[in-house]
Order: sequence, then structure tokens, then C-alpha cells
Amino acid sequence: MIHYDKKDENSFALGTTLSFEALLRVPEKVRRLYISPKQNRDETYNKLKALAALNKIPLIENNEKIFQSQDKDNVMVIAEFEKFETPLDPMKNHVVLVHPSNMGNLGTIMRSSAAFQMGGLAIITPAADPFDPKTIRSSMGAVFSLPFSTFPTFEDYRKVAGNRHLYPFMLQAKKSVREAKKEKPYSLIFGNEATGLDQSFLTVGEPLIIPQSSTIDSLNLDNAVSIAIFAFLD
Amino acid sequence: MIHYDKKDENSFALGTTLSFEALLRVPEKVRRLYISPKQNRDETYNKLKALAALNKIPLIENNEKIFQSQDKDNVMVIAEFEKFETPLDPMKNHVVLVHPSNMGNLGTIMRSSAAFQMGGLAIITPAADPFDPKTIRSSMGAVFSLPFSTFPTFEDYRKVAGNRHLYPFMLQAKKSVREAKKEKPYSLIFGNEATGLDQSFLTVGEPLIIPQSSTIDSLNLDNAVSIAIFAFLD
Repeated sequence: MIHYDKKDENSFALGTTLSFEALLRVPEKVRRLYISPKQNRDETYNKLKALAALNKIPLIENNEKIFQSQDKDNVMVIAEFEKFETPLDPMKNHVVLVHPSNMGNLGTIMRSSAAFQMGGLAIITPAADPFDPKTIRSSMGAVFSLPFSTFPTFEDYRKVAGNRHLYPFMLQAKKSVREAKKEKPYSLIFGNEATGLDQSFLTVGEPLIIPQSSTIDSLNLDNAVSIAIFAFLD
Repeated sequence: MIHYDKKDENSFALGTTLSFEALLRVPEKVRRLYISPKQNRDETYNKLKALAALNKIPLIENNEKIFQSQDKDNVMVIAEFEKFETPLDPMKNHVVLVHPSNMGNLGTIMRSSAAFQMGGLAIITPAADPFDPKTIRSSMGAVFSLPFSTFPTFEDYRKVAGNRHLYPFMLQAKKSVREAKKEKPYSLIFGNEATGLDQSFLTVGEPLIIPQSSTIDSLNLDNAVSIAIFAFLD
């Protein structure tokens, strides 16, 4: 049975697809590969075994217990990996999430950021855990391909992010994302799902709004981020 | 304790915010309003009572049992309402979802569609239940403001949708959403989360793709829909 705690050094990619992502993208971080005794000895099995051998990753095939409670999702493969962060390239474009609280949103934002080849993701803590197995699942494996780092404050991020154009997304902003200058490298900055960015961001860079109806309080965070990334790719 | 089944005539808006949405937007559909005995007798309580009286909705204040199992979410108010669909206006723009399977996605798509004032949503069945309390929660109440209807087939939708421009979103499409003519009224058409639209949609209207990296198999459905809606608002 999987026990994951935010303080652990390792986390888990649950399922065949996510385990392959870990093995292919960050093999040096994978510490153990678990294959259920119930897994068919098929092509998938042979590929997993070959990747483990190639990367000298211990393969554990007789630990049925670790798969308990995963059964409902039919998990047959688990990659245990060392948690890691990747320094953000100051020349590239970033998404910055200030105190995101929902693991599903965080994972989906990783997925969209990877799909649109953003240069990296900065997470300002306290925040949802990017390495929780729920976030990893929601990221569809983007957690292994998208560079990301956590920072205790926005100022700490700015210190390593280099000279860049900052675009905080706020409902209080006057300028539409359509009218933004979109100068590179840029950071698209978003606040917490419930509270947004605090007022102090109105004096940071060029605050933008995604124009929307007032019937609903606002877009879901991951939808807002995806729209902003797409709009900046113009 | 709430028991909801897809076949039921009624469903439930769980929580104060969603109950207010139901009371304000579709009071004629609300059959009963439950207020927990634990709810403070505050301004919210007085507003709820006034809205129930105004609309002659039975108010039930002594049914603690219905709030059981909702406690973890701290639900104090439940609006039981009659399920309903709204005919789609053939002059307006629509989102069409063909066999969406995830209630969270469906609700979030309702939320984005309402935020961008789309004219309506068509759901081709089999599909996630638009009236499941999980969908309602995820819609943040947009289920009560966005016109939507279900149809057994895409052809049934076309019969009532009038003469319009059809844009199926498919990974196999050659033309980018950026290059689309965007003629009104339009329908933005999306397939199931796992399987997308089937090949036959390549001959329907003007198939479009949201250009994205191949590192991730595709965007999450609700993110793709939000981006498409936003791109068509240009």
C-alpha cells in the first residue's frame, strides 16, 4: 500500500502510463519500479523490464501489498522516484502560480504548460504539493517534462528569474489580455483559486484580465491559465 | 442523506452558494429548500427564507438527516429542484460535447461557457449527467444560467440547431483554430476525453486543431474548450 507524505523524499507515479513517463524522461530519478504479480507478461512488461535494466533500476515484482487500495484504478505498475526541482531558465517564458491550493488544477496546469511548451513553472508556497500522486496523475506525466521550482515568496522567484516582463492576471486589472504587448521573456502570474492575487500585484508589471461575464464569479484557474498561455502564443 | 440517481426527476444544489443560484435563476424549478438546524439565523438565513416565501417554495428546517454525509463539506443549505433542459437558440453560438464522460469537466465547461456568454451547450448522449450534484458543484451554478439540452445523436442536434457553421476540434485536423474563419452562428464541437471525435467529423464543417506540443497526448477537455471559446471571441 502506498503511503505518501509531503515531507517524503520520494513519491510515486501510479500506473503504466505515468511510470513510462518517469522511466523515459527522468530515469536517473527512479529508485524502484514495482510491477504487480498480476501484470501480464506482455510487451508492456518486457519494455518496463528492459528500461529498468538499462537504467539499473531495482525491479520489484513480488510485492503485492504495495498495490493494495490501488486496485479500483487497476494499477499494475508503480515507479517510485526521488522528488526533484529544475532551475528555471531566465531566458524562457514562465507560468507563476501564487499559492495554488488544488492538486487537480496544479496538475492540469502542468499538462497545459507542457502542451504549449512553456519554459517553466514557478510555484509560490504555501501551495498544493506538485509531487502528490494526485497532482502527478492530473498532470498526465507533465510533472516529468515541464521544468518547475518552488519558492517561498514571489520576491525569491524574481531574484532568479532575471529581467523579464511580468503579467499578473487579476479581475481588478483594466487591460484585456488581448491588448497586452506580450514582450518576451514573460511571466504569466496567477493567484489562488479562491482569493486570486492580492492587490499589491496591481503595481507589478502589466496587470491583465481575461474579459468575461459577471454571471459567474470567474473562470476555473486551470482554464484561465490555459487561455492566457494560448493568447500569449499569438 | 442525499440519494441522487440519474433517473430521478429531481436533483440537488448542495451548499449555500449553489442554492442561491438555483433560487435566483430558476425559482420556478425549486421544489424544496432544506436549511440545516445548525445554520446560523443570520442575514443569509433571512434571505433564503425570503426567497422561499416569495416563490412559494416549501422550506424544511427540521430535517437533519438530509445533511448527513454532507458534513465534511459543511453543507447547511440544499435546494432540491426539478431537472430541466432549455431549447437552444438557433441564432446563437453553441458548444457541442459528444459523449463527455467526466462530470468535473462537464461542469467546468458549463462554467467557462457561461463566463464567455456562449448561447448554449448541446450534450450528445451517452454522456456524463449534467444534473449530477458533482456536475452542478463543478459548474459553480452555471447549470442554472447556461441554456443546455441533451440529444441522442449529433444528427438530432443538427435538426434543431438551424443553419450554422460547424467547427469540430480534432487532433487530426490540418487547420489551426487561429486560421478559422469564425463565421456566426457557430458550433464548437468536441469529443470524448479519451477518444476525441471519430473520424467521420473530418467531413463535418471546418475541422480545427489547437496547435500543441506532442510531448503530452492532448490538452484536458475543459481547457481545450475554454481556449476554443476564447479564440472564437476575437
